[in-house]
Amino acid sequence: MEELSSQFMAHEWAINTVWVALCAALIFFMEGGFALLEAGFIRSKNAMSIIAKVFIDVMFGGIAFFAVGFGIAYGQSNGWFAFDTGISDGDLGLGLTVSNTLFWFIQLGFAIAAISIVSGAIAERMKVWAYAVYVTIFCSVLYPVVANWVWNPNGWLALRGFNDFAGSAAVHAMGGFAALAAAMVLGARLGKYNEDGSANTIQGHNLPLAAVGAFILWFGWFGFNPGSSLGAVGNWELIGSVIVNTFLASAAGGISTMVYTHFRYGSIDITMVINGVLAGLVSITAGCNVVAPHSAIVIGLIAGVLVDVAVLYVDKFKVDDPVGAIAVHGINGLFGTLAVGLFAIEGGLLFGGGISLFITQLIGVTVIAIFSFTTTYLCMFLMKKTMGIRISEEEEIQGIDQSSFGVKSYSDQQ
Amino acid sequence: MEELSSQFMAHEWAINTVWVALCAALIFFMEGGFALLEAGFIRSKNAMSIIAKVFIDVMFGGIAFFAVGFGIAYGQSNGWFAFDTGISDGDLGLGLTVSNTLFWFIQLGFAIAAISIVSGAIAERMKVWAYAVYVTIFCSVLYPVVANWVWNPNGWLALRGFNDFAGSAAVHAMGGFAALAAAMVLGARLGKYNEDGSANTIQGHNLPLAAVGAFILWFGWFGFNPGSSLGAVGNWELIGSVIVNTFLASAAGGISTMVYTHFRYGSIDITMVINGVLAGLVSITAGCNVVAPHSAIVIGLIAGVLVDVAVLYVDKFKVDDPVGAIAVHGINGLFGTLAVGLFAIEGGLLFGGGISLFITQLIGVTVIAIFSFTTTYLCMFLMKKTMGIRISEEEEIQGIDQSSFGVKSYSDQQ
Amino acid sequence: MEELSSQFMAHEWAINTVWVALCAALIFFMEGGFALLEAGFIRSKNAMSIIAKVFIDVMFGGIAFFAVGFGIAYGQSNGWFAFDTGISDGDLGLGLTVSNTLFWFIQLGFAIAAISIVSGAIAERMKVWAYAVYVTIFCSVLYPVVANWVWNPNGWLALRGFNDFAGSAAVHAMGGFAALAAAMVLGARLGKYNEDGSANTIQGHNLPLAAVGAFILWFGWFGFNPGSSLGAVGNWELIGSVIVNTFLASAAGGISTMVYTHFRYGSIDITMVINGVLAGLVSITAGCNVVAPHSAIVIGLIAGVLVDVAVLYVDKFKVDDPVGAIAVHGINGLFGTLAVGLFAIEGGLLFGGGISLFITQLIGVTVIAIFSFTTTYLCMFLMKKTMGIRISEEEEIQGIDQSSFGVKSYSDQQ
Repeated sequence: MEELSSQFMAHEWAINTVWVALCAALIFFMEGGFALLEAGFIRSKNAMSIIAKVFIDVMFGGIAFFAVGFGIAYGQSNGWFAFDTGISDGDLGLGLTVSNTLFWFIQLGFAIAAISIVSGAIAERMKVWAYAVYVTIFCSVLYPVVANWVWNPNGWLALRGFNDFAGSAAVHAMGGFAALAAAMVLGARLGKYNEDGSANTIQGHNLPLAAVGAFILWFGWFGFNPGSSLGAVGNWELIGSVIVNTFLASAAGGISTMVYTHFRYGSIDITMVINGVLAGLVSITAGCNVVAPHSAIVIGLIAGVLVDVAVLYVDKFKVDDPVGAIAVHGINGLFGTLAVGLFAIEGGLLFGGGISLFITQLIGVTVIAIFSFTTTYLCMFLMKKTMGIRISEEEEIQGIDQSSFGVKSYSDQQ
Repeated sequence: MEELSSQFMAHEWAINTVWVALCAALIFFMEGGFALLEAGFIRSKNAMSIIAKVFIDVMFGGIAFFAVGFGIAYGQSNGWFAFDTGISDGDLGLGLTVSNTLFWFIQLGFAIAAISIVSGAIAERMKVWAYAVYVTIFCSVLYPVVANWVWNPNGWLALRGFNDFAGSAAVHAMGGFAALAAAMVLGARLGKYNEDGSANTIQGHNLPLAAVGAFILWFGWFGFNPGSSLGAVGNWELIGSVIVNTFLASAAGGISTMVYTHFRYGSIDITMVINGVLAGLVSITAGCNVVAPHSAIVIGLIAGVLVDVAVLYVDKFKVDDPVGAIAVHGINGLFGTLAVGLFAIEGGLLFGGGISLFITQLIGVTVIAIFSFTTTYLCMFLMKKTMGIRISEEEEIQGIDQSSFGVKSYSDQQ
Repeated sequence: MEELSSQFMAHEWAINTVWVALCAALIFFMEGGFALLEAGFIRSKNAMSIIAKVFIDVMFGGIAFFAVGFGIAYGQSNGWFAFDTGISDGDLGLGLTVSNTLFWFIQLGFAIAAISIVSGAIAERMKVWAYAVYVTIFCSVLYPVVANWVWNPNGWLALRGFNDFAGSAAVHAMGGFAALAAAMVLGARLGKYNEDGSANTIQGHNLPLAAVGAFILWFGWFGFNPGSSLGAVGNWELIGSVIVNTFLASAAGGISTMVYTHFRYGSIDITMVINGVLAGLVSITAGCNVVAPHSAIVIGLIAGVLVDVAVLYVDKFKVDDPVGAIAVHGINGLFGTLAVGLFAIEGGLLFGGGISLFITQLIGVTVIAIFSFTTTYLCMFLMKKTMGIRISEEEEIQGIDQSSFGVKSYSDQQ
């Protein structure tokens, strides 16, 4: 019997390892999605520079999250913080049935997704090395602190019953409000806003390239959300319903944007439809484990309109966000976290569960958004006053591809 | 012992959940493949519009297949049809060892693959909202009816022993003959055919983009075919041979197109080689579970020539199919279904199995092709007479990207 | 109990089948990565031709590896060679818990990765059919012989304890030194080198396209390295540490290239950063199963500089390698194999394990590199003297896309 039991254990760990390893690979691939989406949505003169910044997210963010960040997030927490480094061999208290190293890799995917949200908002004007410094701070400390609150078994939000299954708050609101602060400190791109306060549209240079990115992100999300189960044994029902909710919210988000922009502007705005799908995905990420499929559709429909409205408001406040990262990830991360409090089958306000879960969600995401915004604002402000964060006007006019990377994204050489 | 047995069950369901969830994600990613392949094969002025149409396939098709289609396909069937809605909780009679929700998601991949075949054939000239209506009808009713026949345990074709493992008939012939009808009702693009009946070549604007799509489709097919096992426990041999057959047919299809076009036209036609690989994949999709590897090669070799010939015939009949969807999916879906009757190790005509399986395959795919063609023809015809399905000449000349979506796929703004 | 035991077996085989099938799919997808990376790094007039050559790698290489190559690699070996054809049904002596057919498919991924390395080095000047002949020879005989030495249970290197987990030597050095020989026999592109021996830079035409390829390769590597476990049961620790090492080396490789090129040239060379990431991946591929995470970082840091230096030296010797394949795969495949002898936790020179493992690694990779170089040199030389391997000057000036494939990669038709 003992041998049997150990064989059972071996199978359980193997099944969960396969599941988490492959979901983590899908999540990792989302970095390609961020890079190409952002590159397509900006001008050709900066296309490779933004791809380079996503490389920096992965490379500097990855090493930082290995050396420092993971220990802060998943070490022995005092509720707010942990002091640990590297990848611990010990029990993390999460009931894992995969190795700590594999758990690190899937968590890495979340960390670098969060920072990649910021890379979009600072596009076309930020210094490369300054960005590398910020990425290192973000993945060493800022993101890990929030992950500690939400996902460490002793985190103060985890202990309060905060439900953020795959990170509408910890990843998307975190990234989105950091993006807001970064864009504010950086200032707008040259020529973005007119004297009278009106905004000029700066066209994306290669929308099919952005679509490549969008499809990769959509694909990767089917690792991101169900992979957050951290194991398949015992989770066959959960995984199915997480996947269905994830899909339905994304489809509904795209449809509502399509309808909204059609009626609002007279023609469908296809770049906003892409953002609408992403908004649907962001908004279901917190609650995909606890809401019904019909609620997922409603959440997606709301997200798809919210993102359109939010993009306009961000512009109205003259915060220049070239790819809509604040609206997609910040606002919908916030909305998605609150949606749990409204739509959760158990505990949701609209399902007779009372107000308490909603309050917890509200407190959690508010604190996270404020923390993310203020710490990033402070970092960027200090960096601005010291090393400088913005390229020169000449460089901006020439484009970062040439000024910082000595290349042209596209070349006609024969 | 009882506890043991329940643990065994838990493992079996977990293993199959991992398998189906990840194969389904690969299948879902094929939508990116369709979108980019089609976009690359048409003119730049319509590139985003076709990508938008694949978004519509996913979004409208997805919601339709959730609300209505799945119940029609997999509810309690009278042999031809089922009346059910949403995703049932009950036993579907398929011996599933994954949740019904997860089964829905993998079936969704098949449904939206079928409709995405149509999106290619109607490229560069169809109205956006009319297309959205058609997608909704297709994924609510047309495709589900055929899926009912073929894959519902009580479907009339399933009961006759029709073998269509991953859908050469139910997905590809279904999509391909719908594409034929749609292209016929729509009419050819302006300037495609001359007064004397000869056809002009309209160049694809970005073949490397099409190649991105082709590689995604090729990759996704390794979810599409083996994932149709719907579980891995007990299927280790099946999965291996399905994968090998899938690969060999695709390689053979590409090679025979390469050789054929080289000798026929004096130089290799690389866009046709891409279609040859896809034709090989389509043609092995029905029989990948029942043919020997050497047969897979022969099937692929035939498919690779068939697609070249079919493309010419489609053009000769002045049916304007910008991406070759009818030849790739329609003709080779038909051929692949029949190939089962010829090459199946058990029951194949060429392997001494007699004529009966071949007859079943012939009846099945013929009925499906006729059903698909006539229902789509009728839908498109009625829509043409009412809401209209074709953009105006001005819009066609300008391109749908600008006229319907207010964007340019590529922008030179500095 | 017997029934129990057979159920256990069924689960073990199912788990490992899921793992290997999906890792193999990821590895297969890397072909898209090679194609797009190479296409982006060369001129637009040859973009589809290089994608076509990767199609040839897959199609001709695949059929060759099915009909001949696999039997040579994994048949009953005399230490150097095996005489077998097709996919044997028998026990391969590898303790496999997946079908031989599935094992074939994952090995196919390695074979066509090796040949795809060569496709980059011969870009922009090699005849299509001559390349198809070479691919067939490479995947029928050349690569399989080396795979026999390294991975056949009776291979002479396997018996010596040579550690090449996922193929720094058998795949990357093999491909890289073949690339060197091929590029030498072919000669440089027109206009690459000046009379005085200095080299001209020929710009890649579409760096974002190359980035699409890079992200696909990076993604696929998370199938390539951990998938080489050939099973998940019993390997949960191994898989986690392989993944972490793979990631860390890639990140470190990119960072060291970024820092090196910044200080060496005054600005970051982003195309070299991409190569630096790939160099990190190549260099950890042999030892990802036996080194500590900190060693993986050191290996990556070294690889990232090595690739920059190697690119310059290759150019200095007037070997024209348009995409840097020799430096990335040849030099870093060699380095990665040796790094095992230095950094292995057990047996590594730097960890007190003595010199013997290092010697084995040195002998193995040296013999492989020499074998690869000389056999390819001979093949290419004989083909040059007979059928010819190089396109005409006119064709080269016009571009292979038009001269051999009758297409333009990009078209402005309206």
